[in-house]
Amino acid sequence: MVTVAVDCMGGDHGPTVTVPAVLSFLRKHPDIQAILVGREEVLKPLVGDDALAAPGARLSVHHATEVVGMDEPPASALRNKKDSSQRVAINLVKEGKADAAVSAGNTGALMATARFVLKMLPGIDRPAICSVLPTVSGQCHMLDLGANVDCTAEHLLQFGIMGAMLVAAVTHREQPSVGLLNIGEEEIKGNEVVKGAAELLRESGLNFYGNVEGDDIFKGTTDVVVCDGFVGNVALKTTEGLAQMLATFLREEFTRGIFARLTALVALPVLKRFKLRTDHRRYNGAVLLGLRGIVVKSHGSADACAFEQALVRAAEAGGNQLIERISSQIAKRAQAIEDGA
Amino acid sequence: MVTVAVDCMGGDHGPTVTVPAVLSFLRKHPDIQAILVGREEVLKPLVGDDALAAPGARLSVHHATEVVGMDEPPASALRNKKDSSQRVAINLVKEGKADAAVSAGNTGALMATARFVLKMLPGIDRPAICSVLPTVSGQCHMLDLGANVDCTAEHLLQFGIMGAMLVAAVTHREQPSVGLLNIGEEEIKGNEVVKGAAELLRESGLNFYGNVEGDDIFKGTTDVVVCDGFVGNVALKTTEGLAQMLATFLREEFTRGIFARLTALVALPVLKRFKLRTDHRRYNGAVLLGLRGIVVKSHGSADACAFEQALVRAAEAGGNQLIERISSQIAKRAQAIEDGA
Repeated sequence: MVTVAVDCMGGDHGPTVTVPAVLSFLRKHPDIQAILVGREEVLKPLVGDDALAAPGARLSVHHATEVVGMDEPPASALRNKKDSSQRVAINLVKEGKADAAVSAGNTGALMATARFVLKMLPGIDRPAICSVLPTVSGQCHMLDLGANVDCTAEHLLQFGIMGAMLVAAVTHREQPSVGLLNIGEEEIKGNEVVKGAAELLRESGLNFYGNVEGDDIFKGTTDVVVCDGFVGNVALKTTEGLAQMLATFLREEFTRGIFARLTALVALPVLKRFKLRTDHRRYNGAVLLGLRGIVVKSHGSADACAFEQALVRAAEAGGNQLIERISSQIAKRAQAIEDGA
Repeated sequence: MVTVAVDCMGGDHGPTVTVPAVLSFLRKHPDIQAILVGREEVLKPLVGDDALAAPGARLSVHHATEVVGMDEPPASALRNKKDSSQRVAINLVKEGKADAAVSAGNTGALMATARFVLKMLPGIDRPAICSVLPTVSGQCHMLDLGANVDCTAEHLLQFGIMGAMLVAAVTHREQPSVGLLNIGEEEIKGNEVVKGAAELLRESGLNFYGNVEGDDIFKGTTDVVVCDGFVGNVALKTTEGLAQMLATFLREEFTRGIFARLTALVALPVLKRFKLRTDHRRYNGAVLLGLRGIVVKSHGSADACAFEQALVRAAEAGGNQLIERISSQIAKRAQAIEDGA
């Protein structure tokens, strides 16, 4: 039984989104327990007399008196909000009472608190943010997406290890392929950090594919794409911008005049399937990797459908020995370096 | 009268694409002359007895015996192919016989040859590649898109000046807005190079908007978006990948079963308008900025429609004192620094 601790107060919509998402999630996944973290007086009425919350059932409420504001500076949240729903959810992971924590709250505060409470895994220098993106044939895990703006080659190697272990844990394929995001496939391409990372990745024992380019992400060329947080964040935001623009253009063309509007009516079922397939809510939930515990960040603006997806990610990452896999891979590498030295 | 020198031999398709594109282009633009550069025995039959090529008319053929291969190393092209169509076209710019050169050939060789033949403008350290991207409301110029992988703050400032002057030259608006691509709008965000560039841009006298994020490119938040070549190339390729994936999904949904196929027939006019509006060929043609002459790079795979667009870019950049604008802006800045010191 996997247990997920949910910061129910965070995000743009708070408990009105998070609580229904948890209830729906638990109904679909009978092997998961959830702990709702936040103000009891707010959460309990929302749960009501749902059978899931009966004594001994899979849902419980854990009181936390404070809430971190969406614009609060991370340092202030860390210092002054020791009983925030975000922090208490992370504490539950630290204490072994939950396998993963999920929050749609303040990203900076979540990162800082998770790092402070859980600490880094030995051999990992920095946490990384890993998201799932759709591809033509399936999906791709990409990291880092914004936690680290100045990375060394060693950091990129660590991201590669963590990304590969996440995919291995979630998909049960032991040797997922890892690509290094670059501006050409040839080995001579790229800046010094990327060239150094390629060398480290080649010797890492991972299933290293080599350099990949931006378009390989959506082609599904590799299971994992590694990059520094600056590049990853720009690439992710740029694709969001393009997707929005194309959706706007498509809508405009299908509402330009009477004929187009009639066409839209006829095409509605097809357009709906297209929309469903490209629905960004299906890819909500970024895993913070590198800590001694699993924390998943949901988009602040997530609706119940999107937040439920973040819960799925947390349950997957929390239920498959991800931390142990990363630790063992890092230990193997340290041993190899020692043997080689 | 603006004169464009066209490397007719370069690109995946060579003269069968470039020559018809030039003929079509000249018919639409009576104020432009073109010099077709390449093997006379190949080009002359393609032009035939077209009136544009009559003695004294706007089209002439300039013989060049060699062609740079698409996979040829730039250093080898530079050393061994002194009479290549690419190099001769650039020579014509250097000699003042053309206002701009256009090539769909080997990018590395084009960059190296342009830099060797034309030399850098005083005060500019590196050439940058600038492309036009569509936005919700118009278009955006973005640079650098891959020429420079390790940039300093000063380089990014120079890119900002060059991009702003290109937009000013082409659109005749004197103060185009310039955004700095970053991972957040706040001033504290980003790596050290970007933070330094923001300071320089703020003091530059340009219409500096501040930091922009990836999605701002397609929102059209600023006229110019500045970034280093690594980030720019990844962002561009990533959007290409996403656009291809979405096109694939749309096609798949409209061919999934008989109903969807019938719907596609009905929706064809609307889908065609959408396709036209998002046609990447309309954005073909990247300007190499920072040299003592204008060189435009077309995609190697460009068809006649796309190549014609690159000719339009060359004529726009070549006909509006772009080099003089950049030089004067750089000189102003040098003077300001001297006055301040």
